[in-house]
Amino acid sequence: MRALRLREWKSEPVLEEVPVPEPGPGQVLVQVGAAGACHSDLHLMHEFEPGTLPWSPPFTLGHENAGWVHTLGDGVTGLAVGQAVAVVGAWGCGSCEHCLDGLETYCERPDLAPVPGGGGGLGLDGGMAEFLLVPAARHLVPIPDGLEVVDAAPLTDAALTPYHAVRRSLGKLRPGSTAVVIGVGGLGHLGVQVLKAITAARVIAVDGRDAARVAATEHGADLVLDPGPDTAAQIREATGGRGADVVLDFVGSDETLATAAACVRQLGDITIVGIAGGTLPVSFFGLPYEASVQTTYWGNRRELVAVLDLAARGLLRADTTIYPLEDAVTAYDDLAHGRVTGRAVIVPNDAFTG
Amino acid sequence: MRALRLREWKSEPVLEEVPVPEPGPGQVLVQVGAAGACHSDLHLMHEFEPGTLPWSPPFTLGHENAGWVHTLGDGVTGLAVGQAVAVVGAWGCGSCEHCLDGLETYCERPDLAPVPGGGGGLGLDGGMAEFLLVPAARHLVPIPDGLEVVDAAPLTDAALTPYHAVRRSLGKLRPGSTAVVIGVGGLGHLGVQVLKAITAARVIAVDGRDAARVAATEHGADLVLDPGPDTAAQIREATGGRGADVVLDFVGSDETLATAAACVRQLGDITIVGIAGGTLPVSFFGLPYEASVQTTYWGNRRELVAVLDLAARGLLRADTTIYPLEDAVTAYDDLAHGRVTGRAVIVPNDAFTG
Amino acid sequence: MRALRLREWKSEPVLEEVPVPEPGPGQVLVQVGAAGACHSDLHLMHEFEPGTLPWSPPFTLGHENAGWVHTLGDGVTGLAVGQAVAVVGAWGCGSCEHCLDGLETYCERPDLAPVPGGGGGLGLDGGMAEFLLVPAARHLVPIPDGLEVVDAAPLTDAALTPYHAVRRSLGKLRPGSTAVVIGVGGLGHLGVQVLKAITAARVIAVDGRDAARVAATEHGADLVLDPGPDTAAQIREATGGRGADVVLDFVGSDETLATAAACVRQLGDITIVGIAGGTLPVSFFGLPYEASVQTTYWGNRRELVAVLDLAARGLLRADTTIYPLEDAVTAYDDLAHGRVTGRAVIVPNDAFTG
Amino acid sequence: MRALRLREWKSEPVLEEVPVPEPGPGQVLVQVGAAGACHSDLHLMHEFEPGTLPWSPPFTLGHENAGWVHTLGDGVTGLAVGQAVAVVGAWGCGSCEHCLDGLETYCERPDLAPVPGGGGGLGLDGGMAEFLLVPAARHLVPIPDGLEVVDAAPLTDAALTPYHAVRRSLGKLRPGSTAVVIGVGGLGHLGVQVLKAITAARVIAVDGRDAARVAATEHGADLVLDPGPDTAAQIREATGGRGADVVLDFVGSDETLATAAACVRQLGDITIVGIAGGTLPVSFFGLPYEASVQTTYWGNRRELVAVLDLAARGLLRADTTIYPLEDAVTAYDDLAHGRVTGRAVIVPNDAFTG
Repeated sequence: MRALRLREWKSEPVLEEVPVPEPGPGQVLVQVGAAGACHSDLHLMHEFEPGTLPWSPPFTLGHENAGWVHTLGDGVTGLAVGQAVAVVGAWGCGSCEHCLDGLETYCERPDLAPVPGGGGGLGLDGGMAEFLLVPAARHLVPIPDGLEVVDAAPLTDAALTPYHAVRRSLGKLRPGSTAVVIGVGGLGHLGVQVLKAITAARVIAVDGRDAARVAATEHGADLVLDPGPDTAAQIREATGGRGADVVLDFVGSDETLATAAACVRQLGDITIVGIAGGTLPVSFFGLPYEASVQTTYWGNRRELVAVLDLAARGLLRADTTIYPLEDAVTAYDDLAHGRVTGRAVIVPNDAFTG
Repeated sequence: MRALRLREWKSEPVLEEVPVPEPGPGQVLVQVGAAGACHSDLHLMHEFEPGTLPWSPPFTLGHENAGWVHTLGDGVTGLAVGQAVAVVGAWGCGSCEHCLDGLETYCERPDLAPVPGGGGGLGLDGGMAEFLLVPAARHLVPIPDGLEVVDAAPLTDAALTPYHAVRRSLGKLRPGSTAVVIGVGGLGHLGVQVLKAITAARVIAVDGRDAARVAATEHGADLVLDPGPDTAAQIREATGGRGADVVLDFVGSDETLATAAACVRQLGDITIVGIAGGTLPVSFFGLPYEASVQTTYWGNRRELVAVLDLAARGLLRADTTIYPLEDAVTAYDDLAHGRVTGRAVIVPNDAFTG
Repeated sequence: MRALRLREWKSEPVLEEVPVPEPGPGQVLVQVGAAGACHSDLHLMHEFEPGTLPWSPPFTLGHENAGWVHTLGDGVTGLAVGQAVAVVGAWGCGSCEHCLDGLETYCERPDLAPVPGGGGGLGLDGGMAEFLLVPAARHLVPIPDGLEVVDAAPLTDAALTPYHAVRRSLGKLRPGSTAVVIGVGGLGHLGVQVLKAITAARVIAVDGRDAARVAATEHGADLVLDPGPDTAAQIREATGGRGADVVLDFVGSDETLATAAACVRQLGDITIVGIAGGTLPVSFFGLPYEASVQTTYWGNRRELVAVLDLAARGLLRADTTIYPLEDAVTAYDDLAHGRVTGRAVIVPNDAFTG
Repeated sequence: MRALRLREWKSEPVLEEVPVPEPGPGQVLVQVGAAGACHSDLHLMHEFEPGTLPWSPPFTLGHENAGWVHTLGDGVTGLAVGQAVAVVGAWGCGSCEHCLDGLETYCERPDLAPVPGGGGGLGLDGGMAEFLLVPAARHLVPIPDGLEVVDAAPLTDAALTPYHAVRRSLGKLRPGSTAVVIGVGGLGHLGVQVLKAITAARVIAVDGRDAARVAATEHGADLVLDPGPDTAAQIREATGGRGADVVLDFVGSDETLATAAACVRQLGDITIVGIAGGTLPVSFFGLPYEASVQTTYWGNRRELVAVLDLAARGLLRADTTIYPLEDAVTAYDDLAHGRVTGRAVIVPNDAFTG
């Protein structure tokens, strides 16, 4: 079968022929319906030196995957051949406390996982191929009626990540609360939708790009701001002086974190989602009392069930641009040059695109 | 190997020779260290008509199991041969929402489980044999240092059940709160210990048996009552008129439930653990405002990790009487006639008892 | 001033002249903008024998009140004369544990409250008069911009009660969850709106009246059912066999409670809001595992802040029919005979209605 | 009456005669039984320039107070003259959202509070006098039987602060979890006790002083460490490599915060209690995933009820050294020079000390 492979660090991916994998005991072979192309893949291609990460090329790209169950390995139950499924991307050991809690993103025995701290498209072969080998049935979530496979794929990352972030702050998102979304891009525009779908909080979106602010409004943001030196003051004013109960920073630069700190309410949350590399200095008198600061990373299978339910019911959608597998290199080039509207999604099987 | 088998409904179990099972893909063969004998097994032997339950004899008894990993089926990771493990007893489908949340006791697709609504010793072969076939590695929890296998076995039910019950009420068990334990038997005496170990609530224990009340005091109960017509009034008086924040009814008769209803506080919990068959009529003005009534059933693997940790650190212990496998029939006879101190535990492998 | 007074049990209220009260230390005199007429007032007028309740006539009716701060008693801070306020109706002692938690509905020292287990319009003079004496400033909540006083009044009961009920079940109302509302009347139609506003759960509404089902659909119910012998089965089918995560029974009869029990999911909630007087027998095998049953009663000031915020933002509204104070007796007569659309609201001050 | 007054910034306090205050409406005059002397008072005396804080001398010192109700202002209910009470120290506006939630430490309308961001002994007259004027009855909590007034006073800060900090992290303090207490001084030694009393977590205490480590062991710490370059590594080793679920830093220096960051677990909490002025730089890859960092400040009345209950039942105690009021200056001098064992407590009324 054809697969888009990263052969070595600091190289462009290439489309090459590889064998179709065979599922072993407990594994599942998925016929890929769609695989999202993520900005983080560009980082993978261009920025890492050998030895930096605990895994290395060659592997097939694609960590936002959905498709149909094709072959069940020995001992797999609870899945039917032909069933439409989305793939939970973080593949942990399955037996540490965090994995027992369903939090494989935070696996504490990565040495026992299929690959330490990675998954399909991240050290192991991913979904930019006709078939994807999934190492355990628990990583597959049924796609409900009303949602197409091609629409489900990008949600496994771009919607799951903000959903996980919002969910940990739910207790602070009561009616009358305010959530601020900084950066309304691939993840942020879904963050706005998640907030509107599962809370009654007011949503303030902050983005310097006109199109992003228009999108934020369309997705239900109650107030949209073009960032500047007065952003935090504007947020305080819009909240009667109290500040934001929750700030989700999808950028994560020094500047955006400083804005977050300047606008957060006592007892609020600042959650760093974006990896722009910024730092927020935290000290006793430097932040409002009991405002908490934390990162967040991806999500888990139970949360993906929720995300897919929201999407099937029309409460969430990712804008997408579709490419056949033979144009996957083009897709990444478009992505790198800002020419993609919404999420670039690779569709590897002609049957689907035809 | 030898196994204590229930051959048909309404019969006594017999010790007979059966083949050692072979673990298939994803399965694990456990060398049994200990298997608890439970009162509910007596119900199984004596009370059910064919067709009442969704499963039927013949099967090996024993649903409170611990031992050592003996053979790993294909594809099993995260376990080592020889490792001491306790067995989580409820075996669900593994893929429904409740199983995704780790609540296999409340599996919603029992038709996809190894046996509907059962597990080892409950429709499938259990632990009263030299070896136990466990259908998935996720049902095994490592036994921490400081805890013997023979002590771990009964905790998988007799401590896990009250732990699950207490945990769902944790928010109501603050300092100054009061928990009432009705029935200080096999589960109740562990309920008292769980409450003292993980909360700062006051514990009132109610039992008509002198020895049970002595045990309750030894395990830390702050007040011990011999039940009578004034029990609820005594509890109200001991709580400044407010009543009990949480009542755990390990009996579950009409009488004990009526006591629970008469002593519970507004906003409190009445949790029915015991299966004596009682009924509590609930109506708008019949209970204090927002007092909630619910049953509870067993627990899950994450909770078993916690229970074993408490036991390994000396915060929980089950009193036990040990029998070799050849005396298992005697053990049940002793149990049926009230001659067992603490929990009867069957030890099937001579190496251990020798 | 004029006031609609209940002079004695089992009598019709009369409009009579009473002195304007003087606020003592810590008290606040409110100029009434609107007072809702509630079905429970009809019970008050017609059904109670002397001595049944811990308080008795004469008193002014009206326990759903909003208006403007008119005079501040000595020592009151945090309120301004002329400010629009809604009145939290349950007036507790203010110092027991539940009152410290803001739950004055569940006050545990009613002997220290202004009236035991009551409030304005319930033993003390209520809002069907030109002025209302509120015994402590903490019972007043500012009405936010965007919400009229006349619209706020009925929300203090008819929306606050379902809001409190939904809020205690929030953890069970995730995306993919289902809430059932039985009875889409004065409180139930606001229950549907609260569920849609603050959760992403699917809402199934059950009511035998055509107009109520139409209203439920307009307020966002995802499925509307005419009750019958198959109601529970229809709900199970609509939820893939799982049942309802939360059932809010705004009727509370034997029949509706039986339906609730037959359709609730394992781990679900059955909350009894309505006082039709039904009973649900609860036993170990009579309900799905860990489904909890409880009543609920009114709500607190923090929750009223949330309700008013939702209403000010257009996420909640009560349909109302407005009567001047001189027609208050007519309003109750219309209410008793089913001639009121939405909530009957009495407007005592001409300045407002003029 | 005599009172220990701070007359101006950067001065030593002096004992002088002041009038006994008269309680106005809603206020309460408390006969002081004991007032704790806190290190933060030394900062007040020595470090602030005029204009730095929103309030200023002269005022009577003492913000950890307990005594007996002496005179009730007009309109006060729920308290009896002669009743033993502890004083909740943070006095907010009483009507903002945080105050409605009982969190007057985080009052959002300090302009409406008796003094902005302060309380008795912090801008207003405190408890180092024969009588203390408390501006609202809600700031008083009854002292339960079994606890002396003199023992209750220091708990209102030194135990309440760690109790509030532990309580917000309760969900992360399950059996098997680990809490680290950095700094086992006046607050830290009570932090150890709170953790042992209300959770089953393992407690690791870190302090460079021999006596502090001995005290930590006596109060139940499971492991005690002398801080050094290997502290974080020792904590990781003691937790099977996972790290600490909760770190309470009672020092708050750059060094202790760096240790906290190096030993915290994914999903853990780092809570800054101490005001040594350190800073922790937080960035996406600089801390384990979803570990949260926040400050904490004092506690509220509902939490003080819990603290006093724990103390009355022998689960908490503060070591104290008692001084009569005339020796209060000496007490602070002893405190400044490290000559006080435990908490210095001033007892202003001879009747008690005699």
